Amino acid sequence: MVHIGRSRDVEARMYDDGENARRAEKRVLVGPRENAPNFSMRKFTIGKGGCSPYHKHPWEHEVYVLAGRGEVRFAGGRRAVGPDDFAYVPPNDEHQFVNTGDGVLEFLCVVPLEGEDG
Amino acid sequence: MVHIGRSRDVEARMYDDGENARRAEKRVLVGPRENAPNFSMRKFTIGKGGCSPYHKHPWEHEVYVLAGRGEVRFAGGRRAVGPDDFAYVPPNDEHQFVNTGDGVLEFLCVVPLEGEDG
Repeated sequence: MVHIGRSRDVEARMYDDGENARRAEKRVLVGPRENAPNFSMRKFTIGKGGCSPYHKHPWEHEVYVLAGRGEVRFAGGRRAVGPDDFAYVPPNDEHQFVNTGDGVLEFLCVVPLEGEDG
Repeated sequence: MVHIGRSRDVEARMYDDGENARRAEKRVLVGPRENAPNFSMRKFTIGKGGCSPYHKHPWEHEVYVLAGRGEVRFAGGRRAVGPDDFAYVPPNDEHQFVNTGDGVLEFLCVVPLEGEDG
């Protein structure tokens, strides 16, 4: 059955350890709960001054920036991003998403199910 | 290597057979070209009065509406959608995306690689 929802109605999970991840909220829009067979679509909202951890893992990211100003940091570089920009992070590549703007940074991040921790 | 791009810089492929698909443009943001191993992220822009075909196939869709007003039609129903709405279309479920607004309808649609025709 087709499932349709509003992002704002999806419960958020906060990621903030005061160091590696700061002011990051994740909403799983489509994933294991909908019995998605292969990959999970998540929406991240990162508050002013916040970031995701600088890390790597065996699964890829496919990212689309919805709102705000940010920076993608990776081995050997960093790149400013904004709305309409997208990013592909291959498996095992180091990466971090940093909010460099005055408002929230919002992006979608799609991962294979093995990368979805709920 | 992390790959970052702008959607508007990606070449569009038009889908318009005057009947089933009308005024639909697809941009493959991340997919086989980037050696994505599992799934492909595409951005669709559907002009006023346009639509994707009403059809089904063995792979799922995970969709996020970026802009405009539309309707998702499926077996047994239809539902209005707009920005911030998302949709999950399971494998083998009939579905269609219709632009019901006065401007363009834009959405992301992620599919497993088997569903990517380039």
